[in-house]
Amino acid sequence: MKSRFITLILLAAATISAMAQQALFSGGTVTSPEINPDNSVTFRLFSPKAITVELEGDFLPDTLRSVKMEEGKDGVWSFTTQPLDPELYSYNFVVNGMRQLDPSNIYQNRDVATWTNIFIIKGDKGSRGDLYSVNDVPHGNLSKVWYDSPTLGLNRRMTIYTPPGYEKGKNYPVLYLLHGSGGDENAWSELGRAAQILDNLIAAGKAVPMIVVMTNGNPNCAAAPGEWDFGMYQPRFQGGVELPKAKASMEESFLDIVNYVEKNYKVAKNKQHRAICGLSMGGLHSFQISKRFPDKFDYIGLFSAAIRIGGDQKIPLPERMRADKEFNKEMETLFNVNKPKLYWIAIGNTDFLYENNKEYRDYLDSKGFPYEYVETSGGHIWRNWRIYLTDFAQKIFK
Amino acid sequence: MKSRFITLILLAAATISAMAQQALFSGGTVTSPEINPDNSVTFRLFSPKAITVELEGDFLPDTLRSVKMEEGKDGVWSFTTQPLDPELYSYNFVVNGMRQLDPSNIYQNRDVATWTNIFIIKGDKGSRGDLYSVNDVPHGNLSKVWYDSPTLGLNRRMTIYTPPGYEKGKNYPVLYLLHGSGGDENAWSELGRAAQILDNLIAAGKAVPMIVVMTNGNPNCAAAPGEWDFGMYQPRFQGGVELPKAKASMEESFLDIVNYVEKNYKVAKNKQHRAICGLSMGGLHSFQISKRFPDKFDYIGLFSAAIRIGGDQKIPLPERMRADKEFNKEMETLFNVNKPKLYWIAIGNTDFLYENNKEYRDYLDSKGFPYEYVETSGGHIWRNWRIYLTDFAQKIFK
Repeated sequence: MKSRFITLILLAAATISAMAQQALFSGGTVTSPEINPDNSVTFRLFSPKAITVELEGDFLPDTLRSVKMEEGKDGVWSFTTQPLDPELYSYNFVVNGMRQLDPSNIYQNRDVATWTNIFIIKGDKGSRGDLYSVNDVPHGNLSKVWYDSPTLGLNRRMTIYTPPGYEKGKNYPVLYLLHGSGGDENAWSELGRAAQILDNLIAAGKAVPMIVVMTNGNPNCAAAPGEWDFGMYQPRFQGGVELPKAKASMEESFLDIVNYVEKNYKVAKNKQHRAICGLSMGGLHSFQISKRFPDKFDYIGLFSAAIRIGGDQKIPLPERMRADKEFNKEMETLFNVNKPKLYWIAIGNTDFLYENNKEYRDYLDSKGFPYEYVETSGGHIWRNWRIYLTDFAQKIFK
Repeated sequence: MKSRFITLILLAAATISAMAQQALFSGGTVTSPEINPDNSVTFRLFSPKAITVELEGDFLPDTLRSVKMEEGKDGVWSFTTQPLDPELYSYNFVVNGMRQLDPSNIYQNRDVATWTNIFIIKGDKGSRGDLYSVNDVPHGNLSKVWYDSPTLGLNRRMTIYTPPGYEKGKNYPVLYLLHGSGGDENAWSELGRAAQILDNLIAAGKAVPMIVVMTNGNPNCAAAPGEWDFGMYQPRFQGGVELPKAKASMEESFLDIVNYVEKNYKVAKNKQHRAICGLSMGGLHSFQISKRFPDKFDYIGLFSAAIRIGGDQKIPLPERMRADKEFNKEMETLFNVNKPKLYWIAIGNTDFLYENNKEYRDYLDSKGFPYEYVETSGGHIWRNWRIYLTDFAQKIFK
């Protein structure tokens, strides 16, 4: 059946406009990336008129911004890496000094204003690459959900993962999973592979079935760029488009989200069944929200968190925290009265927030507030945040 | 609060790896596309080493594959169009003969293996551009849902739109919305702007609140490329990767979808509250499914449909249809016994399937089977399919 339809298309292709034909028949003319049997990866770009072609990728050493690709026969430039560990990797080409994507690879992720191609070295069962892949396991549903935030005066968008079997189950625990500055409600499901991580951990019995609520942490925005009525603006990490001012902060408005979820989903509505974690700015939010609502969350995760409190910023953080009566009262209520089951801090040893986190741990230590601490290699990057989510998701609701 | 965090980031930026910095701070250095007050559009690309830069776009005359861009000061190439009508448009650059996307525009759509940038000329309220935009109206939720298809032996993915207020409502009608060859369950929500069209029509009172089920019409695939366990393959309209064989056809397996929807959503379970429509191959599927299950759908829409039946393909379609007893019996049961409220056929006058559809209408006419027919300009393109969905959605469940 399909073949006859394709014949029909092919016979008539000459009558279709150039743009439409392109969509049907184009794409790269070479295979790229090609994952070789030894897990080295060959990248190829057909670009016969190029003078230089380079490859940028997060599998290259941090000290290397790019590597040069070699021109071969027929205008195909290529580069083969060393064997790579199982992982999700990002890359792009640089042709004559200008970044561009790989036309032979439809898989790509947006981080703020930049698209990069991605690929996965899958590896053995349970490896990182395997955990980030879509496997032959039951899948949860992923929804873009609009909720009212009376505090922010906005109808807002979030991403909600419901685990496999949700239709039949009840009393699910909820993980609130917060993104960093520059991100939005799409960040954790796209860059963070949250649905794949949860599907695979749940299938392996390593995490309990849970709902994951991925909010938009920018209280001045209703949704990701292009997904609300502010138009199809080009996001910038700073400057650029002038966005509206927020009516309240993320922490002030957070219970609007919890209320919506607990009204509309089959969840257990108590501290034992709520977790909150986030990366960078989302780590700051998790720190603030768990402190502001100390009886709400039994599991709190700070991933590369941008820890901050008010006061004289010239005074070192631990001293400033110890001197702030109101802050200490809140922290004592959280740790000594409500006693969360897990306060989990993770950061990479080259993260620019490493010292900031060390200072925060100094404060926690000086007060005897218990926490678990994980230090990884690497910096302020999604590779680490996927690892932290994988670890944290296995520690909660058990 | 945000400014202090940004200062922290900026101070520490030198320690972040090149790839991570890029994500935070890069993106285009120029504004592109810029929609001018008269709705002409200026495209810009910073590419100081380029020899030629062209622009391809579906706003150019069909006879023009591309236009040349002019190099200005500082290596910025640009081109300004004539004023454009309100519409969603697609484009890409061609630098030294090689296609590439606009690094200043994060908005892009994938059609089979090709990504193109998009932009919208919004226009007045109710214009096409307005209907395809995210406006300040209540929004429906859009979910990626996994369902079991016993007929295909697969757990499969589809996209489901639930209208604003669904949490509180009941007995919703359901539109089954099918994509074309080369597409998948993401096509109608991305390329087709289905959620925006429905949100805007419902808000304007022009369509009734309905659930829209966007299936995957490739019965050999569980989901869109990369979204099932076949891996991150590069889709091809033909050839390329060797996909599994399907255990049954789309029409044979279709009730698996209806059964899932009617079990798990708040829907009215009768013919009056079911509609089915689709484009190209999805039009063929709508033709086949409505004929096979004649008591299921009161509204049937064929958009640029690839109408086909068995028999000797050298015999013209109307004659072949009239000669096929089994086929006629099914069609008579559909039209004379079950009498759908609407059998709607739409096609563009330059579509390569125009003659095929004319032949089908000749058959319908010769049998006296009633249908509505809409002929537009243009060919086998998404611009037409968005228009057809907009029209069809206003005609059903009323």
